[in-house]
Amino acid sequence: VDQIDFLELHRGAAPAKGVTAWLVDALRAAIGEGRLAAGARLPATRALAGDLGLSRGVVVEAYQRLTDEGLLSGRTGAGTVVTGLAAQPQYQSRPREPSAMRLPLPPSPGVDLDLSPGVPDLSAFPRAAWLRAERAVLATATNADLGYGDPRGNPRLRGELAGWLARTRGVQTGADDLIVVSGVAQALALLAQTLLAQILRTHGGTEVAVEDPGSRGTRDELAHWGLRPVPVPVDDEGLRVDRLAATGLETVLLTPAHQFPTGVVLSPARRRALLAWPGLIIEDDYDAEHRYDRAPVAALQASAPDRVAYTGSVSKSLAPGMRLGWLIAPRARHADLVTAKHASDLGNPALPQLIFAHLLAGGDYERHLRTVRRRQVRRRDALLHGLREHVPHARVEGVAAGLHLLITLPGPADDTELARRLEQDGVRVHPISWHRQLDGPPGLVLGYAALPPDRLLEAARRMGRVLGAQRPR
Amino acid sequence: VDQIDFLELHRGAAPAKGVTAWLVDALRAAIGEGRLAAGARLPATRALAGDLGLSRGVVVEAYQRLTDEGLLSGRTGAGTVVTGLAAQPQYQSRPREPSAMRLPLPPSPGVDLDLSPGVPDLSAFPRAAWLRAERAVLATATNADLGYGDPRGNPRLRGELAGWLARTRGVQTGADDLIVVSGVAQALALLAQTLLAQILRTHGGTEVAVEDPGSRGTRDELAHWGLRPVPVPVDDEGLRVDRLAATGLETVLLTPAHQFPTGVVLSPARRRALLAWPGLIIEDDYDAEHRYDRAPVAALQASAPDRVAYTGSVSKSLAPGMRLGWLIAPRARHADLVTAKHASDLGNPALPQLIFAHLLAGGDYERHLRTVRRRQVRRRDALLHGLREHVPHARVEGVAAGLHLLITLPGPADDTELARRLEQDGVRVHPISWHRQLDGPPGLVLGYAALPPDRLLEAARRMGRVLGAQRPR
Repeated sequence: VDQIDFLELHRGAAPAKGVTAWLVDALRAAIGEGRLAAGARLPATRALAGDLGLSRGVVVEAYQRLTDEGLLSGRTGAGTVVTGLAAQPQYQSRPREPSAMRLPLPPSPGVDLDLSPGVPDLSAFPRAAWLRAERAVLATATNADLGYGDPRGNPRLRGELAGWLARTRGVQTGADDLIVVSGVAQALALLAQTLLAQILRTHGGTEVAVEDPGSRGTRDELAHWGLRPVPVPVDDEGLRVDRLAATGLETVLLTPAHQFPTGVVLSPARRRALLAWPGLIIEDDYDAEHRYDRAPVAALQASAPDRVAYTGSVSKSLAPGMRLGWLIAPRARHADLVTAKHASDLGNPALPQLIFAHLLAGGDYERHLRTVRRRQVRRRDALLHGLREHVPHARVEGVAAGLHLLITLPGPADDTELARRLEQDGVRVHPISWHRQLDGPPGLVLGYAALPPDRLLEAARRMGRVLGAQRPR
Repeated sequence: VDQIDFLELHRGAAPAKGVTAWLVDALRAAIGEGRLAAGARLPATRALAGDLGLSRGVVVEAYQRLTDEGLLSGRTGAGTVVTGLAAQPQYQSRPREPSAMRLPLPPSPGVDLDLSPGVPDLSAFPRAAWLRAERAVLATATNADLGYGDPRGNPRLRGELAGWLARTRGVQTGADDLIVVSGVAQALALLAQTLLAQILRTHGGTEVAVEDPGSRGTRDELAHWGLRPVPVPVDDEGLRVDRLAATGLETVLLTPAHQFPTGVVLSPARRRALLAWPGLIIEDDYDAEHRYDRAPVAALQASAPDRVAYTGSVSKSLAPGMRLGWLIAPRARHADLVTAKHASDLGNPALPQLIFAHLLAGGDYERHLRTVRRRQVRRRDALLHGLREHVPHARVEGVAAGLHLLITLPGPADDTELARRLEQDGVRVHPISWHRQLDGPPGLVLGYAALPPDRLLEAARRMGRVLGAQRPR
C-alpha cells in the first residue's frame, strides 16, 4: 500500500467509467505537485493494478499515455521513471482584473435603470421567428453551406441584404460587393487595417476625422488599430464640413442618418457639402431603421458609391449579441477588405447568416422592425413626458429617430459628476463628455429602448431629484 | 405629359403599396442618369401628382426626401431644382475577379472526388441535436445574454469548455482564462497582432518558427499580419526541436497531436525537448478529437500552461462554417488578447455559443464525436485498402489519427503536376509541396472524411491510373 500513497488514491476509489483517464489524472497531478519527483521509479504495472483493484491493462495504458506526454519514460529493465519535465508552474484560477473603461460598461448591481445608449430592447428579440427560421435552414441547408465558405459571407444572405439595403437605404450594391462582417466593430477594424496598410505604402498620415461629440467606442477602436481620430465639431446640422475641409485630412467617419450621440440628422446643405468633399467617407448607418417621423434619408452611399464605405448591423434592430453586419466599400478597396476579413476569421458563422437571410426573404425582419418602431415611439414619448415634468429646464435634442436622446442643461455643469450621482441613485446614463474630445456644453445621453414606459418615467423622476439641484440658483 | 418624360413613368404605373419609395427611386434614377441635369426645375407637386395619378402628398413627400438627401433644393418662389450633386459614378455589378490561391480552394465543377484535407464529414453535422439545443437556449436565455457581452465569450460556454478541455486534453485553465474566438484562424490573428505589438515595443524580430511541411493557410495568415514564418523541418518524430533551437527564435507554432500534413504525433523525446526549450509555444490542436488507436496524447499546454498558447475549434468536429473556437494563452498575454478580440469584433455571436454550451453540458457533443470517429475509421480503412490495391508502391503515413493521410512516392516526382493530372481526372488532393517552404520528398495529402467508403475506393482507383505511370520504369 505504501507504494501508492503518492497517488492519494485507494483501492476501490476508481470510478465505474473512465478509469484510465482517472488514473492518468492522478498520476499527472502527483508529478505536477512534486509527490513524484523527477527520477522517481513508478510501481510495476502489475503491482499498482493489484493495489488499486484495477486490471493491469488500465495501468499499462495510463503509463503509456503519460510516456507519450513526456512525463514518464520507460526503459527495458529500468522500469518506468518520472522524467525531468515536472516542476512546471501549475495552473491556478485567478480573479478577473479590473480593465480600463471600455464601452459598453458591464452591468452594475446598484443600477436598476440602465439608460446607456446603444442597447436595444432585447426583450423584443423575435425568438419564435428565429427558431422557425433555424428549423427551415437546418432542413434545407446543403452540406457545402456548413463548410469553409466565401470570406465575403454566404451568397444567399449577400443577395438578400443587397436587395434590402437598396430598398430601404438606397444603397447601390450587388451581392458580390457586399461583405458580411461581425458587426460595425469588425467593419471598422477591417477598414482601419486596410487604410493603415495603404498609409504605410504611401507614407500618408494616420489621422482620420471623426465627429465630436461622437462614439467613444469607435474612437478607441480606431486608435487600437493605429489610426489617430481627429475631432471635427458637430452642430445642429450635423458635421461641420467646413471644419472637416480645413483639416486637410483624407478620411472621415460619421453617422449621418442619426448622429451619435446628438441625434442630429445631417442637413441637406451639409450633405451636399460633404459629397463635394473629395475624401473617403465611412458611413456608420448604425440605427437608420429607427426613424419615427418619416422614412429615413437615404444613405450617403446612394449618392457616391465610389467614395463611401457603408456599414451597418443588426445590433440595434435584432440584438448586439448577433455580431452580424455588413460592409460595402468603394470598388477599389473591396479586394483588400476581403483579404483582411479572410485573415481575421475566414468569414462569418454560417447558420446565423442563413437564418437572417430567411428572415429577410420571408418578411419577418421587416415585420419585426415595424413592431419595434411602434414600441420605441411609445418609450420615447414616455421619457419626453417624464423629462418635461421632472426636468423642465433641460433642453431635449435628437428625438426624431433612434434609441436615445440627448439632454443639455442650462448653465455650467459637470456632466460626469451628474452621471456619477445618478448612478448612485440607480440610474445609468452617459455624460456626453465621455464622447467628446473637444470642449462643448455638458449633457446626458439617455437610451430609452431597453425600458418600458413606467420605468422611464421613474428614471425621469430620479433625474429630477438629482438634476433639480443643478438649476441655476 | 411632356413634363414627366424624364421619369420614364406613366399614369397608372404606380404600385399599390410603397408609392412614395417608388417615386423617390424614379426621381433619383433620373437625376443619377442625367435625365434631370443639375439646375433643372422639377414640375410643381400638384402638376406631377396629376400627371401620375397620385395624391399630391406623395409628391411633396418624395421631393422632401430627395431634398433631405441633397439631390434637390427648394426655394420659395423658385420651385424645386436639381442640385449639382448628380453625375456621381453609378453602381454597376461586376464579375468576381480571380484571386491569389487561397486555401481552402473553392469548389470546382470538374472535381467529383474532393480529397482536400481539412474538411470534415459535413453530412454528419448533428442538425437535429443543434435544433433541439437552440430551442432550449431560446427558451431559457436571458435578455442580457443577447446584449453586448464579455469579449471573452459567454461565461456559460467558457465554463463548459474549460471543463471539457481539462477532461479530454488535460488543458489547465479556468473559465476566466479562456477566450472564445471565431476559429483557429482568429486565434492566430489575435496572437499575431499582440506578438507584433510586443515586437514593436521591444525591437525584436518578426520571425516565427513553423513546421515544414506545415499548413500553408496558417503560414499565409501569419504573413498577412506582419510576421515572417521561418520553416523548421518535421521528420517521423515531428518537429526537429534541435533545429528549432538553432534558429534562435522565440516563438514556434506547431500541431503536436497530429502534425499537419504528415500526420506524425510528436514523439515523447521531442516533446520533452520542446518543453525544455524556453520560447513561446503556439499549440494548434486542430483535430485532436480524431485519434483512433488510443486516447489522444494530452495537450502540451497541460505540461506548461505558462509557456503555451493553446487553440482549437469545432471546425473538424462539427463544421468549419461554425467559426467557433477557443484560445487559452499564458497568463501574461491574456489581457492583450482580450483587448485585441474586443477591437476585432467585440466578441463571438451569442446564440451559437449558448447552443454549443448546451451540447457540451448534455453530452450530445461527446456522443457526436464517438459516432463520427467510428465512421472516420471505416473511411480511413477503405482508403487504405484502395491504396494498397491500386497504388501499392506508395508509402502511407499518418494513419493513426485525423481526417487525412499522406502518401509519398518512390523516386523523383513533381507532386504539383500529379495533383494537376488527378484534378483533370476529377480527384482533388493537395500536393505536399503546397505546404512546404523547404525541399523535401514529393507526396500527396488525402483527406478522407468527406467521402463514403465506395467513393474513396473509386478515388484510389483513379489515383492508380494516374500515379501508376509514375512508377520507376
